[in-house]
Amino acid sequence: MADVNGLARSLIATDLPRRDGVIQVGGLDLAGLARTYGTPLFVYDAARMRRAYRDLSQAVAGFAEVDYSVKANPRPAVIRVFAEEGAGAEIASGAEYEAALTAGLSPERILFAGPGKSDADIERVIAGGIGEIHLENFEEMGRVAAAAERYGQRASVAIRVNPGPDAQGGAMRMGGKPSPFGFDEEDLEAVVDRIVAEDRLRLTGLHLFAGTQGLSASILLGQWAYGLRLASRVAARIGRALDTVDLGGGLGIPYFAGDGPLDLDAIHSGIPALRAMVAEDPRLATARIVLEPGRYLVGPAGLYVAQVRAVKRSRGQLFAITDGGMHHHLAASGNLGQIVKRDYPVVAVVEAAGAVSMPWTVVGPLCTPLDILARAAFLPQLASGDLVAVLQSGAYGLTASPTGFLSHPLPAEILVDGGKATVIGP
Amino acid sequence: MADVNGLARSLIATDLPRRDGVIQVGGLDLAGLARTYGTPLFVYDAARMRRAYRDLSQAVAGFAEVDYSVKANPRPAVIRVFAEEGAGAEIASGAEYEAALTAGLSPERILFAGPGKSDADIERVIAGGIGEIHLENFEEMGRVAAAAERYGQRASVAIRVNPGPDAQGGAMRMGGKPSPFGFDEEDLEAVVDRIVAEDRLRLTGLHLFAGTQGLSASILLGQWAYGLRLASRVAARIGRALDTVDLGGGLGIPYFAGDGPLDLDAIHSGIPALRAMVAEDPRLATARIVLEPGRYLVGPAGLYVAQVRAVKRSRGQLFAITDGGMHHHLAASGNLGQIVKRDYPVVAVVEAAGAVSMPWTVVGPLCTPLDILARAAFLPQLASGDLVAVLQSGAYGLTASPTGFLSHPLPAEILVDGGKATVIGP
Repeated sequence: MADVNGLARSLIATDLPRRDGVIQVGGLDLAGLARTYGTPLFVYDAARMRRAYRDLSQAVAGFAEVDYSVKANPRPAVIRVFAEEGAGAEIASGAEYEAALTAGLSPERILFAGPGKSDADIERVIAGGIGEIHLENFEEMGRVAAAAERYGQRASVAIRVNPGPDAQGGAMRMGGKPSPFGFDEEDLEAVVDRIVAEDRLRLTGLHLFAGTQGLSASILLGQWAYGLRLASRVAARIGRALDTVDLGGGLGIPYFAGDGPLDLDAIHSGIPALRAMVAEDPRLATARIVLEPGRYLVGPAGLYVAQVRAVKRSRGQLFAITDGGMHHHLAASGNLGQIVKRDYPVVAVVEAAGAVSMPWTVVGPLCTPLDILARAAFLPQLASGDLVAVLQSGAYGLTASPTGFLSHPLPAEILVDGGKATVIGP
Repeated sequence: MADVNGLARSLIATDLPRRDGVIQVGGLDLAGLARTYGTPLFVYDAARMRRAYRDLSQAVAGFAEVDYSVKANPRPAVIRVFAEEGAGAEIASGAEYEAALTAGLSPERILFAGPGKSDADIERVIAGGIGEIHLENFEEMGRVAAAAERYGQRASVAIRVNPGPDAQGGAMRMGGKPSPFGFDEEDLEAVVDRIVAEDRLRLTGLHLFAGTQGLSASILLGQWAYGLRLASRVAARIGRALDTVDLGGGLGIPYFAGDGPLDLDAIHSGIPALRAMVAEDPRLATARIVLEPGRYLVGPAGLYVAQVRAVKRSRGQLFAITDGGMHHHLAASGNLGQIVKRDYPVVAVVEAAGAVSMPWTVVGPLCTPLDILARAAFLPQLASGDLVAVLQSGAYGLTASPTGFLSHPLPAEILVDGGKATVIGP
């Protein structure tokens, strides 16, 4: 538990310096923002997003470009921050496509993935233009071809591959097992042949996504090398160069005790070997190689701020009951796929130097024992009216949460940029 | 796994008879409803709700009245079904209060619970009238008293008690441990005294909620007896009769392999002993004793219908990829508090007699391995366009789900009543 506190402390030290004890976000006083916009409140720091984007882009420079996976946080103002840095977008629904366009991206900068695309969404992107559609199954192949036919087009498509076990890695493994995502690697050549036989499709790319929340540079580098080998197989089968090799996202951020940040220096050290692989295959040398993280880019930039409504000691345990909870932040409550429920880093927004910390259970207002923001966060003495913040909350926060659960109001979402705050959602 | 299939089969047999292989809901053809209203689709059967309400009311007749816990499904049309049966409502937010009023309930039929009530919500119910406010902590006591003062009222309040370990029971235990809910039982007399000392409050009731999803009649009867003893303690301390004893909800329904339905006959057999307890204490004899289930009343009445978009065999495992998923039905995906992820009963909407079943993994369209509706549902051969239904989906369905996750459209919700279907949400 002391370790969790360590993560919170180090995040505060690097990203969210206190002034007179109050957390500052992008130069603005977080307590002041909570007063102005009310609580609960999501706050996103544009400068922190840019830093993540630039650091990663630099680490993989000369090998891959970095796109933004919209599902992590689909607010157009968030997408725009990355678009202005040069990112394209990976989308997973028609509404995410609209959000990317609203953010100012041109259609050809958008890739469309997702295992069960609707006819309406396929129609929408064919009509409006799209960089590439990732095919996940044969029914989808037929649907995309039919839509392209209706619009008199030839649609650019990529094969999404469900990789074999050698590609595995990451906290939530998506490769090597039976999967609803993409085509099994062992069928790759047969799948290529069927797609190539469709007049209305132009096979231009490969998409591999081998895991999520990866914190190990060596595993990620291994997955990317694996993806390059698969891309070479596809290019060899079609006998021409690929336009795009999408190596997925899957770059993690530290959430829990014992998580360290992804080592970008180690990533950087592995890039020459990957560049050499690309240079060896002339059919890959001209391809745009893409990473499309979401969480890595926007996760660290977000905070969820809640106000304490009551404190109590029940049978020896300290509880802070706040106005924020799982209805806005399901992941922090431990109910978004976690097997073992561990605490996100939670801090007091205002903390005097030298304040004594104690373990608090921080809960929300819902009438369910699932509504927990932290089981044991080390915080100073709290009282009604005090503010707490859940860190690392920029990705899979509000839009991944059951906002209608118990019918409470939605929180505001604000973007801090250049010393100014703007309401960007919901 | 065969057992899961057994639950689905028995639910189909009792509640959802097939005609020419097609599930009928309230006399209407489910495939036809899906055609008319599109998929994904939530369908609620008013007759099934009434049956659950009447069966339970009859089982506890002479002892308790049955109210409806709005959080299970807050659509006003659903609340109205129970209101017309005579139910009051238990609410947990201001918006649920509005929903109850919209459903035609008069304010005095509404009880307000929840561990972190907002000032705005307290103000709203004091201004509009309310049966009773359940106090969960001292800060809330002060807030309710202050609001009553502003409106020149005396507010009727109940003490919510966090019971000792002897009251425990249910799949998700809420008693006997440290808890953010209510006041610890061991402090009861002191809490009574502080509330009685508030001029603006009138202590009229007790609220005990000892567990959720209880399928054991004997445990539930034990919890209710425990609640009566606590109520006697409160009444003795204030030296007058209580108006209300709210024994909570917590009545479960079968979801998973091995779950049997709650035995209402066994509940009924235990009622005389509870009546005798009430009769023994003159301060309880005039109280309205209330059960306020939600899940039990509306859960079995709901189905979530999704359409298959693709089928595939990946490494030996059969997948049906549908247009419905965790964004509409988080609980079925195993991400609403389940420790062990087990399948809800999932069936094919159309099934020929004698069709051969095989184990299917039914997934949704989201680009995440969490998006699973069933890990191994025994279903006939499926193809794109076929319909599947998740049963037991009337409670904690759409409103408890992350509807914004990946920005897909909302499903319609329809209520079937008297042979007619009406759109009731979202």
